[in-house]
Amino acid sequence: MSPTDHPQGDDVPTTVKAYAATSATEPLTPFEVERRDVGPKDVRIDIKFAGICHSDIHTARSEWGPATYPVVVGHEIAGTVAEVGSEVTKFSVGDRVGVGCMVDSCGECKNCLAGDEQFCVEGNVGTYNSVGKDGEPTHGGYSQAIVVTEGFVCSIPEGIDLDVAAPLLCAGITTYSPLKQWGAGPGKKVAVIGLGGLGHMAVKLAHAMGAEVTVLSQSLKKQEDGLRLGADHYYATSDPDTFQALRGQFDLIVNTVSAMLDFDAYLSLLDVRGAMVNVGLPEEPLSLRMFSVVVGNKSFAGSNIGGIAQTQEMLDFCAEHGIGSEVEVIAADKVNEAYERVLASDVRYRFVIDIATL
Amino acid sequence: MSPTDHPQGDDVPTTVKAYAATSATEPLTPFEVERRDVGPKDVRIDIKFAGICHSDIHTARSEWGPATYPVVVGHEIAGTVAEVGSEVTKFSVGDRVGVGCMVDSCGECKNCLAGDEQFCVEGNVGTYNSVGKDGEPTHGGYSQAIVVTEGFVCSIPEGIDLDVAAPLLCAGITTYSPLKQWGAGPGKKVAVIGLGGLGHMAVKLAHAMGAEVTVLSQSLKKQEDGLRLGADHYYATSDPDTFQALRGQFDLIVNTVSAMLDFDAYLSLLDVRGAMVNVGLPEEPLSLRMFSVVVGNKSFAGSNIGGIAQTQEMLDFCAEHGIGSEVEVIAADKVNEAYERVLASDVRYRFVIDIATL
Repeated sequence: MSPTDHPQGDDVPTTVKAYAATSATEPLTPFEVERRDVGPKDVRIDIKFAGICHSDIHTARSEWGPATYPVVVGHEIAGTVAEVGSEVTKFSVGDRVGVGCMVDSCGECKNCLAGDEQFCVEGNVGTYNSVGKDGEPTHGGYSQAIVVTEGFVCSIPEGIDLDVAAPLLCAGITTYSPLKQWGAGPGKKVAVIGLGGLGHMAVKLAHAMGAEVTVLSQSLKKQEDGLRLGADHYYATSDPDTFQALRGQFDLIVNTVSAMLDFDAYLSLLDVRGAMVNVGLPEEPLSLRMFSVVVGNKSFAGSNIGGIAQTQEMLDFCAEHGIGSEVEVIAADKVNEAYERVLASDVRYRFVIDIATL
Repeated sequence: MSPTDHPQGDDVPTTVKAYAATSATEPLTPFEVERRDVGPKDVRIDIKFAGICHSDIHTARSEWGPATYPVVVGHEIAGTVAEVGSEVTKFSVGDRVGVGCMVDSCGECKNCLAGDEQFCVEGNVGTYNSVGKDGEPTHGGYSQAIVVTEGFVCSIPEGIDLDVAAPLLCAGITTYSPLKQWGAGPGKKVAVIGLGGLGHMAVKLAHAMGAEVTVLSQSLKKQEDGLRLGADHYYATSDPDTFQALRGQFDLIVNTVSAMLDFDAYLSLLDVRGAMVNVGLPEEPLSLRMFSVVVGNKSFAGSNIGGIAQTQEMLDFCAEHGIGSEVEVIAADKVNEAYERVLASDVRYRFVIDIATL
C-alpha cells in the first residue's frame, strides 16, 4: 500500500520512503522517514518531483558544517495536496503545490511580517537538516510526502508541469528575487555569470522581464542553449577581450557562480550606478578593490532566495510567461550518479528526481 | 595692485599669487600661477576661501601616483565672480560662486549628458594636477583667482558664508550624493563611520534630510560635537559591545574613513536590504565574506563626489537648512602646519585658507 492511498483517512501512514545521506562519505541510500500528523494548519503533500540543488550535495557531504545524519535533502519540491488540516484555508486536496528552502519561521519578527521569512530574526526552519517547531529534525524532498504548515506552501499554477516547476522553488526564486530588487526590465542590460541551474533560470526570467540579457560563461560551449533560453548575447570569460568589449555595459550582473572570481574585473563591466548581485557563497573571504565600487557609484551586493509571497509571485510570473526549468528527470536510484554529474557541471540544467521511482 | 582691481578690464593680470607643492617632500611654498584669459564661456573667480581636503595632501605628496610639480592644490573653492566671458549666461560679476573637484569634461558622453561629469567617459579635467582642454596643467584653489568654464561653476546661495561654503564643494557633495542615491530621509536609520571633514558633513546632511543619525567613531572623544551637529546616537567602535548592540539596525552606513576596516563587522550592522556606501579609497585590496552581503540582501557600495547639477542641488539644500561646514580658518602660511594636523585628525572639522592672506 502506498502512503498516498488514504489521502484523508485517519490511518495515513506517517512513514514514507525516501533517499537519505547517512554520513558525509557514503552514497545516498533508500531510507524511511517519519512525517508528522497533519496539524490544523498543516498541508500534507504527495511529492511528485524533487530537484537536485548543489546545496543538497553540500549538506549531504557536511561541506557546510556537520549535518545531522541521517538526512533527507531536497528543497525543490513539487507535488499535490493529499490532506489538509482543519484550519487550512489556502489549499484543498488535489491542489498542485510547491515547497522551497524553508518550512517554517517565527512569523512574528519584523522580517517575517515584511514577507522576508528567509531572514527571520529567530532563524527560519530549513526544509532539511534543520529542527522543526516540534523539535524533530526536518527532512526534505527526496521522499514520497512531506507535511508543511500552509504558510510555507505555494501554489503551482496550471500551465507549468510539476517536473519543470520543482527547480523554481529554489533556483527560480533565488534568481527572480535579485532581478526584481535591482529593477531588471525593459531598457536594462543584465548579465548573468554562469549558465547552470541558477544561471539558466536567471536568463529565462530576465528575458521575460524584458531586459537585454548577456550570458558570461567560461566558454562558448553552451552558447546555442543560452541564446535559445532567451539571451541576446553570449561571451566567453576565458577570452580577455570580453572584459574590454563589455566595459561599462551592464546595469545589473547576476553572479550565479559560487567559485572565487576576479570581482574587480566583473565590476568594471558595470555602468554607472550598476550592481553586481551574488547569489552563491564561496567559503573563503574574497578580495575587492574599493576603487571598483567607488568609481561609478557601483554596488557589490548579495541575495538569498526570497520570501514566500515573492516565491508565489515568481511562480505566477513563470506561469504567465510559460517558464519552467530545463530539466533532466531521473529515477531515484540515479541520484548518486547525478551528484557526480552536477559536480562536473554535466547537466542541462537541473536534475529532477521522479519520486514515483522511489 | 591686486589682481582683482580691474575685474573687467583688458589688463587683468594672468599671474596670481598661490601656494604650491614643488616636490613630494618639500613643504608648500609661495608661488605664482598663470591663469588663462577669460574665454567666451569662462568665469574668472576671485577666490576668497579654499578648504584643505585630505586629497590635497595625497596629491601634493605624490601618494596617489606621481604629481606634476609644481602643483597648486585645493578643490574646495569659494569666491566671487570677477569677470565673465561674452557668452556666459549663468553668472554676473559679483556673484558668489564655488568650484569643486572638476573644472571641465567632454560634455558629450552619456555620463556627462546624464549630469555625471565625474564619470565622463573621456575623463574629466580635475581642478588640479590635471591637464585642461588648452593643454596646460590645471592649478587649484590655494591661489588668488581661477578661470573656469561656467558649466563647472556653482552658485553659492545667500545665507551660507563663503568660508563655511568652501568645503561643501568636495566634502559636502561627496556625502550628499550617496545619502540621496540611497534614500536617506524620514524613517531611515543612517550611520556615519568617522567624524572628520567628510563625516561631520554626512551627519549634518543626513540629519537635515530627516534621517535618524548614528555616529560610529573610534572613541567617544567627539561625542558632544557629534550630537550637536545632528547625530541622535554616538557609539565607539573600539567597544566590541557596539557591534552587538547595533546588529541589523541601519538602512544605510556611510563610511567616510579611508583606512582598512573590518567590513564584515560593519555589514552585520545593516538591516535587510541595507547598504554600506564607501566614499574613501584605501589603497590595498579589501577583504569581505560573501556571506556578509548575501544574508540580508545587502550592498557594499561606493560613491564618488557628484555631478555639477547635484552639487548645485546640495548647495541649495544647505542654504535652505542653514548648513555649512565646521571650519578653522587659517592664514596661508599655516598650510604646512595644517597638513600635519589633518594627518593627526586634529581639526574640527575642516581647515579653510583665507586667501586674502596669500
